[in-house]
Amino acid sequence: MNTFGRIFRLTDFGETHGPCMGGVIDGCPSGLLLDMDFIRHELDRRALPGDGRRESDKVRFVSGLYEGRTTGAPVAFFIDNEDGKPNAAADGVLKPSHSSFVYKEKYGHTCNEQGGRSSARQTVCRVVGGAVAKLLLRERNITVAAETLFTARIETEGDTAGALVECVISGLPAGLGEPVYDKFDARLAAAMLSLPACKGFEIGEGFHAAEMCGTQYNDLQNSDFSFRTNHDGGVQAGITNGEEVRFRVAFKPIPSVRVAQQTVDYFGNPVTYTASNRNDACAAPRVLPVVEAMAAMTTIDFILLNTNKLKIEN
Amino acid sequence: MNTFGRIFRLTDFGETHGPCMGGVIDGCPSGLLLDMDFIRHELDRRALPGDGRRESDKVRFVSGLYEGRTTGAPVAFFIDNEDGKPNAAADGVLKPSHSSFVYKEKYGHTCNEQGGRSSARQTVCRVVGGAVAKLLLRERNITVAAETLFTARIETEGDTAGALVECVISGLPAGLGEPVYDKFDARLAAAMLSLPACKGFEIGEGFHAAEMCGTQYNDLQNSDFSFRTNHDGGVQAGITNGEEVRFRVAFKPIPSVRVAQQTVDYFGNPVTYTASNRNDACAAPRVLPVVEAMAAMTTIDFILLNTNKLKIEN
Amino acid sequence: MNTFGRIFRLTDFGETHGPCMGGVIDGCPSGLLLDMDFIRHELDRRALPGDGRRESDKVRFVSGLYEGRTTGAPVAFFIDNEDGKPNAAADGVLKPSHSSFVYKEKYGHTCNEQGGRSSARQTVCRVVGGAVAKLLLRERNITVAAETLFTARIETEGDTAGALVECVISGLPAGLGEPVYDKFDARLAAAMLSLPACKGFEIGEGFHAAEMCGTQYNDLQNSDFSFRTNHDGGVQAGITNGEEVRFRVAFKPIPSVRVAQQTVDYFGNPVTYTASNRNDACAAPRVLPVVEAMAAMTTIDFILLNTNKLKIEN
Amino acid sequence: MNTFGRIFRLTDFGETHGPCMGGVIDGCPSGLLLDMDFIRHELDRRALPGDGRRESDKVRFVSGLYEGRTTGAPVAFFIDNEDGKPNAAADGVLKPSHSSFVYKEKYGHTCNEQGGRSSARQTVCRVVGGAVAKLLLRERNITVAAETLFTARIETEGDTAGALVECVISGLPAGLGEPVYDKFDARLAAAMLSLPACKGFEIGEGFHAAEMCGTQYNDLQNSDFSFRTNHDGGVQAGITNGEEVRFRVAFKPIPSVRVAQQTVDYFGNPVTYTASNRNDACAAPRVLPVVEAMAAMTTIDFILLNTNKLKIEN
Repeated sequence: MNTFGRIFRLTDFGETHGPCMGGVIDGCPSGLLLDMDFIRHELDRRALPGDGRRESDKVRFVSGLYEGRTTGAPVAFFIDNEDGKPNAAADGVLKPSHSSFVYKEKYGHTCNEQGGRSSARQTVCRVVGGAVAKLLLRERNITVAAETLFTARIETEGDTAGALVECVISGLPAGLGEPVYDKFDARLAAAMLSLPACKGFEIGEGFHAAEMCGTQYNDLQNSDFSFRTNHDGGVQAGITNGEEVRFRVAFKPIPSVRVAQQTVDYFGNPVTYTASNRNDACAAPRVLPVVEAMAAMTTIDFILLNTNKLKIEN
Repeated sequence: MNTFGRIFRLTDFGETHGPCMGGVIDGCPSGLLLDMDFIRHELDRRALPGDGRRESDKVRFVSGLYEGRTTGAPVAFFIDNEDGKPNAAADGVLKPSHSSFVYKEKYGHTCNEQGGRSSARQTVCRVVGGAVAKLLLRERNITVAAETLFTARIETEGDTAGALVECVISGLPAGLGEPVYDKFDARLAAAMLSLPACKGFEIGEGFHAAEMCGTQYNDLQNSDFSFRTNHDGGVQAGITNGEEVRFRVAFKPIPSVRVAQQTVDYFGNPVTYTASNRNDACAAPRVLPVVEAMAAMTTIDFILLNTNKLKIEN
Repeated sequence: MNTFGRIFRLTDFGETHGPCMGGVIDGCPSGLLLDMDFIRHELDRRALPGDGRRESDKVRFVSGLYEGRTTGAPVAFFIDNEDGKPNAAADGVLKPSHSSFVYKEKYGHTCNEQGGRSSARQTVCRVVGGAVAKLLLRERNITVAAETLFTARIETEGDTAGALVECVISGLPAGLGEPVYDKFDARLAAAMLSLPACKGFEIGEGFHAAEMCGTQYNDLQNSDFSFRTNHDGGVQAGITNGEEVRFRVAFKPIPSVRVAQQTVDYFGNPVTYTASNRNDACAAPRVLPVVEAMAAMTTIDFILLNTNKLKIEN
Repeated sequence: MNTFGRIFRLTDFGETHGPCMGGVIDGCPSGLLLDMDFIRHELDRRALPGDGRRESDKVRFVSGLYEGRTTGAPVAFFIDNEDGKPNAAADGVLKPSHSSFVYKEKYGHTCNEQGGRSSARQTVCRVVGGAVAKLLLRERNITVAAETLFTARIETEGDTAGALVECVISGLPAGLGEPVYDKFDARLAAAMLSLPACKGFEIGEGFHAAEMCGTQYNDLQNSDFSFRTNHDGGVQAGITNGEEVRFRVAFKPIPSVRVAQQTVDYFGNPVTYTASNRNDACAAPRVLPVVEAMAAMTTIDFILLNTNKLKIEN
């Protein structure tokens, strides 16, 4: 349940207020040069631009490498938490629209002290996994790039904002994905909805497609099999068609507002809660490399599954 | 790849123009009374209201039952195709925004003659699996209900329309779903995007959440742990919180328009294609029981996985 | 749980005294010519030589084929049971060393009337899946062949006998299997122990290896990388080394003896039970094509997983 | 591929001559008190009795715990390698009956310098996972105990010996395991064959069953449903019957003999190789806690999968 992927698989661990985060990347082919500058760069993109806590994440790899290249063995890594001490303040409070209540129901505790696994901190592991995936995609000339389309407008001091992000995967071969349950875009949707605060996924025209007619929508093909339009966003019947895969992801506002809100504690007693910690006001732009990471891992997993090569030539 | 689910699993088969559709439901607990009237009713909901082909689907169960109850063995079923002869007309044409081109790239053929696995016909198997899932949910007082919010307005004779569908799961316990990769809503998104013509999924406020601020959005709790609002759509941090799970699904217009469109054939030669077959003009309303079926199977699978019971009481 | 394999997957269904057996083969590459004579021949090997019931199994394929070749869609098949009426005789008796008691504990019934899923009848589905796997292996010049090494000597009229079977997979490339948990021989062992009445698996020297010293045992290599001996049975550190994979499988005597034995019924009342049905006295030789089928499906699954190609050439 | 289990899952990493070994235990229920003395004791059993290298393994847990109890989050642990420097001696040699050749074929290198993942060192991670599994089993009064039945007799100085090990799981409920492919003993066989140097698995009478007749073999039941004999070793039709699960595992001699043997190098040139490192002469007795660990993880996984509770009471 803390594993993502089928062939290229990231299993990760760690709590925000524990000693470290980390993960194990399994299924990475042998012989890949791990470009540490690139991995560092990806981590910086996630750490840098926020108005909240600056995380100078240093990643340390402890297995699966020999002379800088992957060996085929699992690649394990760690990132120390700079602020690893338990979070005393919030003890017992069910923080609004946060994981506290559902953790209590599921596990018998709120995880407030440790920060649990549902915080944005966990995404640092996804970025490392995604960076390795991107290096594998780079060898195939496939790129993944996300940008922020807009963020909500904040009127109150201490409030937080939702955000809309778009991501494009370019250079994909046709034939990735399965026609029924393991559609390329079904896996992609699951990858995005697995992100903290994500509330929606759409591909190509997405929700706008619901308002369109077939004569407007259909993507017609040229004699070289290229498409004149890309309303489908690069995926038809769950299978990539060689066009850009273009999708959008909606993020709700970060629930930790520095404004007093009424909630209850573990026993149902009313309490007033004001978030005091140094969270970002918005998932974007720090979430961009995380969105790309999930897209990259989803893509390389389909490539390594290799089911688009299951053809017998007669 | 033609299997859906982890514990409660549907594996299905069959092509639109083959002799039959069918499936195997594995992981269904023993002792469930299979209410055939209910299954018949669900199939009728899918078959009836379309303006296209009327499918009088008779389902036949051939294993996993004894005296009307499930035995714990796999439950296999078949539904004959009334129109099982190969589809001669469309041979070699890459039908616009259809599976023809991606099948050609992936499998080396277009599947036009058989209708392949990407047509709406395949969803009949999902409805049977979903009906069994609903019977298991009924014992737990959990219901699933979808409705059409709108369909696109058609101006041209022979054109087709997109549709927006909303679905609500009621009566869910808190604690279903995993906090990181196997979030309840991540699995739900994958289930919906696995549907033919689906281009988007959103839960709770969904894409609207991107425009909201935290002070408006946060769902505050009462002393009995109920929620005053449900912007999150019943899922927080990937785990159900006991409120209604409410989500929306966008469907693009059916690609088979009865209007001439320019496309190419298998060899890249330009051809004009006009769909002549009796397809529906819109996924809705026939897709409603299919949306519910996927939601029901996703839900019972999480319940049977039982990971919300992995608590040691001290 | 009624599915075998990861990429090449057989999901099967049916009870001995139900209307039919059948299965769905998923993950078979498109373009394979299904040689029906060969499949017929494999089924005959399983049906023919027993002294028990002669099963003239006619297999019918209903999906996944076009003009005799696989399309990439799931291949579903059925085999009618000639003797599909419920087995009235054994009602309520916990048959000795049979599945009755464990079914009662697990499912709440004994399955006696239907014959359940644990009888040898279920293996007919494995043979069909294995035959398709062998056709895929044949294209790669890989063969699988099992033989009976011995059967126990029966002294009593109506008694049954255990058997030892050896199987050889020839023509395998080096590099199949994973070094830790997904060892080639670990998957092979699971495949064999999944057979009814199987009580042991050994590869290469097997249990004899426990009595050997390293200087005798080690397989030394020549300059062309061939091996002078094959004590390891073609698998080292879980990975095929290009030599023949040679393993043995032990089967206990069929529990249905036509000799009176003391047992109890569903309520614990003592009863005397004598099997009256027309079972074989020994798993061998009918089990030979079944052993081969499981070995073939295990092998093609590793090949299609393709993890021995996850090497980046620098 | 470096993950074991379905619900209770161990994913591990690390090479013998790397900085550390470690793993992530996912799916462990929340609230379990991690008895560190017990884990220490299990590691000592693995480290102590060999005549080879003494490994004073100190395990450090870095996530998934709060005040000594599991939280439901993944439990990650590390064990430093005391001798973490690369193994210079064996460079380029294909060590006899070792992983060198198959690694070269699979990954493009021999892994000699790092020691790879196929050495006995990796089993330290299994022992940690197994210790946690045993703590979960202890709450259910289930115990797992292995012993050495014999080891081969060594005549030559520097030679190594095979070994036969027996293991008993006591206190199991009836109903664990699935009747067809996921038999309890099939999973157990795969778990054992995944151990380094394992060449055989048998349960109950095992290979001896091949020489027996049904009248001798059948386990008859008393009125209290207990069994008079246990030839089946506690598993019938793949499902536990409430009796002791008793199985045996065969280990080949450790391939690293301190006696000169002829082999070849990476390029096929003949070389004489004598192992110089401080390996044990025999897998036993250090393998005993490892066998128990795999049995314990297999058992708790079946219990948490909970499929023996999928019964609807009418």
